[in-house]
Amino acid sequence: MTKAFVLINTDSGLEKLVHEEIKSLNGVKAVYDLYGEYDLMVVIEQDTDKDVAEVVSWELRKVKGIRSTNTMVVAK
Amino acid sequence: MTKAFVLINTDSGLEKLVHEEIKSLNGVKAVYDLYGEYDLMVVIEQDTDKDVAEVVSWELRKVKGIRSTNTMVVAK
Amino acid sequence: MTKAFVLINTDSGLEKLVHEEIKSLNGVKAVYDLYGEYDLMVVIEQDTDKDVAEVVSWELRKVKGIRSTNTMVVAK
Amino acid sequence: MTKAFVLINTDSGLEKLVHEEIKSLNGVKAVYDLYGEYDLMVVIEQDTDKDVAEVVSWELRKVKGIRSTNTMVVAK
Amino acid sequence: MTKAFVLINTDSGLEKLVHEEIKSLNGVKAVYDLYGEYDLMVVIEQDTDKDVAEVVSWELRKVKGIRSTNTMVVAK
Amino acid sequence: MTKAFVLINTDSGLEKLVHEEIKSLNGVKAVYDLYGEYDLMVVIEQDTDKDVAEVVSWELRKVKGIRSTNTMVVAK
Amino acid sequence: MTKAFVLINTDSGLEKLVHEEIKSLNGVKAVYDLYGEYDLMVVIEQDTDKDVAEVVSWELRKVKGIRSTNTMVVAK
Amino acid sequence: MTKAFVLINTDSGLEKLVHEEIKSLNGVKAVYDLYGEYDLMVVIEQDTDKDVAEVVSWELRKVKGIRSTNTMVVAK
Repeated sequence: MTKAFVLINTDSGLEKLVHEEIKSLNGVKAVYDLYGEYDLMVVIEQDTDKDVAEVVSWELRKVKGIRSTNTMVVAK
Repeated sequence: MTKAFVLINTDSGLEKLVHEEIKSLNGVKAVYDLYGEYDLMVVIEQDTDKDVAEVVSWELRKVKGIRSTNTMVVAK
Repeated sequence: MTKAFVLINTDSGLEKLVHEEIKSLNGVKAVYDLYGEYDLMVVIEQDTDKDVAEVVSWELRKVKGIRSTNTMVVAK
Repeated sequence: MTKAFVLINTDSGLEKLVHEEIKSLNGVKAVYDLYGEYDLMVVIEQDTDKDVAEVVSWELRKVKGIRSTNTMVVAK
Repeated sequence: MTKAFVLINTDSGLEKLVHEEIKSLNGVKAVYDLYGEYDLMVVIEQDTDKDVAEVVSWELRKVKGIRSTNTMVVAK
Repeated sequence: MTKAFVLINTDSGLEKLVHEEIKSLNGVKAVYDLYGEYDLMVVIEQDTDKDVAEVVSWELRKVKGIRSTNTMVVAK
Repeated sequence: MTKAFVLINTDSGLEKLVHEEIKSLNGVKAVYDLYGEYDLMVVIEQDTDKDVAEVVSWELRKVKGIRSTNTMVVAK
Repeated sequence: MTKAFVLINTDSGLEKLVHEEIKSLNGVKAVYDLYGEYDLMVVIEQDTDKDVAEVVSWELRKVKGIRSTNTMVVAK
């Protein structure tokens, strides 16, 4: 099992919309609104790193309103 | 009472417009034009953290021309 | 209840030591070793923001080997 | 009159000590403990930029426990 | 006399256009293409800080293709 | 021979497209998808620094979907 | 096979020493001196992510003179 | 001729000392005290990139009190 935390910055004002859309994505366990440098953080769990990469690239980063992502994979 | 300083980067050239529009927002005590890495800084005071989050998400970050925000909440 | 994620950079080579020491701190729910820009992430839950600030300042940041912390409070 | 906000990162665990020592420095109007990327913020007011530079270089940055400072001068 | 160095990031591919347009702006002494984190650096000299702020806000940051600027004022 | 590593952030969701387009550019030896703060990394080799600068400015940064680049030239 | 690029900042003046010591570490394929924001970049190849994490934590980050590391794992 | 701008952060309080010591180094044309994210900026001119790299690594970064450097080479 691979776990990753993805820090997200959204286009200004779209963080609520993006939050709602991400919640239902494949492997997403939680989504948090944050104070500070990053707007949201998503917790993703998948069987392998490759599956995490797939969700991040092919689903998460396709969500309209996302400006940048910083994927922090948990080192086993 | 919760106080927060919000560092703002705007789309290039729109800092004056954004400055004017933010001044009148709910709980905004001051707005400063800055040299350096950030374009503006806003001082917000509200009764609770939740109210600060509301102003930042539902009012401040809806202002046209804002590129990114970094909300620094004062730790009591 | 206030939840916060604290991103930590440690002195090079001390991440395992710091990881062990943080695990048992007040309100710490989990500690993760990370790839990328940050070395560790800590999940803290306390009744109030003030309690979170206390744990971060008076316990977490006193642990030997911590270089910098970036506390991301979850906005309710 | 020149106003500046100085964002400060301290050596881990020394933020309270640094906070106390800065409060009494020349031209310091307020000091805040912060959540997020920066540990403290100081508000400095002096007659001229040069005076601000003097306080920052010759007083503030001499305080033991300060790791880095980011001086944001308010553009008139 | 106030001197400032402005680090600029442009929209990808527009750095040459932006370079040409900035050269002729008020108070601009030199423009450099850079390797690394920043795309261009501009050297500005004006009588006062206020004049520097005017050039940066009302001329430089109005140039099409500029994504962000980081104005580093030389401390006298 | 000059070697450079270019760290790239793309518009969210366009990293695969950009990856494909960069592969065939002049002097490009390899392209990698990355976890973390940067989306892609490109390895470029050219006879001189000037040639590297040409490829980066006139080819690489013209590719649609690139948000920012950070060119790290290998010091001989 | 897992490939990772590790961006390294060293204590000022120790980059040559650190470069020499890293070259012989387990799984290290190349080490580059860089211009720009980072001092060195190391290319590591190991059978699994876990092995990469081991080399980074237990060997690389133990080398005297390393200030910070940013491990960018190649997403398969 | 290769020109480079080196952004420097010093240990807190040592910027004046470092400034004095750098002025006389090989190829150094100017040194500036800065407001903002960086403490000093040095202008270096040498015949080749290699000479610039030599001055930065073997002279500049050996100066006591330097915490980090970011060398921005001017692209011809």
